[in-house]
Amino acid sequence: MHVVTRNQGKLREIRAIVGRYGIDVVAVAADKVEIQSDSLEDIVRHAARALLGSVPEPFAVEDSGLFIEALNGFPGPYSSYVYRTIGCAGVLKLMDGVPNRRARFVCAAALGLGGEVRVFRGEVEGEVSTEARGSSGFGFDPIFIPRGYSRTFAEMSLEEKCLISHRAKAFSLLAEYLAAKLQ
Amino acid sequence: MHVVTRNQGKLREIRAIVGRYGIDVVAVAADKVEIQSDSLEDIVRHAARALLGSVPEPFAVEDSGLFIEALNGFPGPYSSYVYRTIGCAGVLKLMDGVPNRRARFVCAAALGLGGEVRVFRGEVEGEVSTEARGSSGFGFDPIFIPRGYSRTFAEMSLEEKCLISHRAKAFSLLAEYLAAKLQ
Repeated sequence: MHVVTRNQGKLREIRAIVGRYGIDVVAVAADKVEIQSDSLEDIVRHAARALLGSVPEPFAVEDSGLFIEALNGFPGPYSSYVYRTIGCAGVLKLMDGVPNRRARFVCAAALGLGGEVRVFRGEVEGEVSTEARGSSGFGFDPIFIPRGYSRTFAEMSLEEKCLISHRAKAFSLLAEYLAAKLQ
Repeated sequence: MHVVTRNQGKLREIRAIVGRYGIDVVAVAADKVEIQSDSLEDIVRHAARALLGSVPEPFAVEDSGLFIEALNGFPGPYSSYVYRTIGCAGVLKLMDGVPNRRARFVCAAALGLGGEVRVFRGEVEGEVSTEARGSSGFGFDPIFIPRGYSRTFAEMSLEEKCLISHRAKAFSLLAEYLAAKLQ
């Protein structure tokens, strides 16, 4: 499967997840058009449709975001931009003194196959930590603690994160579908 | 001139600005595709090109944002989303204790005319206030003080804001160009 991303962290995770289904991953550095939308599904659907015919099938386009309840979903679909500008420190500052720390990580993965696009979604509930901890993963991983754990995503190994993450859920659904189609 | 926006505040300002050049404004509620980009010019150029042929000419598409130096340009092109989620209070919290309060408001206005798109840009330097003040305008107007003033945009009348604003600069350039073309 071709995966359209320049994010090496995402690539490593997707490779680990879909590898369990016997699916290989090849990175494609194609330019993708990302629209502004509050819906990650709409963003990846639009991007994948625009790539039909120019990227070899099957291919996948992924987008993900951290949605913080007390901040009305911020940074949501713009997590990458928010990470680049104000970073984990900025989000922690916004959450300073906020008792409701509930948040969820959401991933939308679009599969391009047979000239059509199908979107899969995964999410994981958790909370925003009070300080950044850990150095694995990428993006807001150091400030997100999945429910039932005391460690952040960035304090987990790639293997452990990829058993429970939003990306694991979305790409497991995508891989199951693809594996069945390719049989 | 047709202006593609659902923002009544923007519409009032654009009408006041281009009215000085004898240009009337008609609002169009067409759906526009906004891409994710750090460049407002790219966003409006892409949106306007997609509307060529479906919106009567001449038409204009506008986007604007508040770029805060100490926050690496945040909220920038995603100002509308950031306003809807964390609002002026969130941006003030991020700026709490930050000595460098320099910021600029930027407007990009794309004109669709003769099957082509031309983009005009305006910007105004200033700083982020320490508290929200005033109730005119919209968006982040209550926390932006243009250079040389002590009042925020939201403490100015529409007429006063429209003499000095980023939107006034962009749409004055657009209107001058359009008025010359239509002569």
